[in-house]
Amino acid sequence: MRTRRTLVKAAAEEFDRFGYDGTSLSRISTVAGLSIGAVTFHFPSKAQLADAVQEEGRQVTLTALKGLGESPASALSTVVDLTLELARLMEQEPSVRSAIRLGRERPGTAAWSDTWLPCVRELLDQAHEDGQLSSDTVPEDVAALVEYLTSGAEAYLCNRLGSELEFESAVTQLRRVWQVALVGVSADASVRAPLIG
Amino acid sequence: MRTRRTLVKAAAEEFDRFGYDGTSLSRISTVAGLSIGAVTFHFPSKAQLADAVQEEGRQVTLTALKGLGESPASALSTVVDLTLELARLMEQEPSVRSAIRLGRERPGTAAWSDTWLPCVRELLDQAHEDGQLSSDTVPEDVAALVEYLTSGAEAYLCNRLGSELEFESAVTQLRRVWQVALVGVSADASVRAPLIG
Repeated sequence: MRTRRTLVKAAAEEFDRFGYDGTSLSRISTVAGLSIGAVTFHFPSKAQLADAVQEEGRQVTLTALKGLGESPASALSTVVDLTLELARLMEQEPSVRSAIRLGRERPGTAAWSDTWLPCVRELLDQAHEDGQLSSDTVPEDVAALVEYLTSGAEAYLCNRLGSELEFESAVTQLRRVWQVALVGVSADASVRAPLIG
Repeated sequence: MRTRRTLVKAAAEEFDRFGYDGTSLSRISTVAGLSIGAVTFHFPSKAQLADAVQEEGRQVTLTALKGLGESPASALSTVVDLTLELARLMEQEPSVRSAIRLGRERPGTAAWSDTWLPCVRELLDQAHEDGQLSSDTVPEDVAALVEYLTSGAEAYLCNRLGSELEFESAVTQLRRVWQVALVGVSADASVRAPLIG
């Protein structure tokens, strides 16, 4: 089990940095300090190792979200906290970053958002029922907005990689963006309607 | 010139689909129906061809945005239109999708967002001055939101690729998301403050 964990951890870092095509089992064996025989004993193919990394990223995400489900906060507030937690995971967990990247690069495997989007949808339906969503919006559109904000946090982290500059954390930036999205960009309700034709 | 254009067009499609590492000059020569000698005459290296594709993506974007600058609409409304135009370009222009992907995969080259973000920032400052932004927001945070929404549209298009299902266009979906972002997610101003700790 310990070798397996070491391998999944090393593979998560490699897949995160170099993607599925740019990563080989032999490279992972070097990084993990294990023989190629030990690697293929646990994972006969790169696809199986990638599956394990994606599953690890999903489990890490589910565990982090479990805590939120028990919070007494309002449903809408829980959605905000959930996305901030996702941003923290993206920032700190190579297995989560790998699960995002591999889900995109390996058609037919589960997208990472499948892990948390059903939970967001349920919370938004609850928020709608509880009258927490502004009257002009429907939960479905808010769910799309939540997906967009999460993609934005991910893109922010990707663009930051390799830069030498000091950057604001993804969590802090997402919190600022949420503040705007909750309040609304436009000054005046009467201005809003004609903006979108 | 014509051969050069054929090559940039073929390269844009290849880089868009397979990324920088997954694309070779010989593959591009096959797709373009040109000899490898003709390719290397115009572009001695893959890096030079990628530079030309990124430049093409930028020019296509700048040309599309030029028309918007002349619109008599309000600054905020122009920002919305600008992002919808970006979504249309992402959906329809392989050179734009390539410029996005290559800008991310080739550290040190310009990010595609550098083409339009200065314009967005200027418009948002104008919108702020004109009192079009809601009083609780600052242009800098709205600019971050605009970047997030654009990343969301791009991610939406990426996830859609390879799927057999019929999907809503990225422009239509972004319009729905903007509607929420303009009005604000939260029902009640007094609820908003405590949502973000």
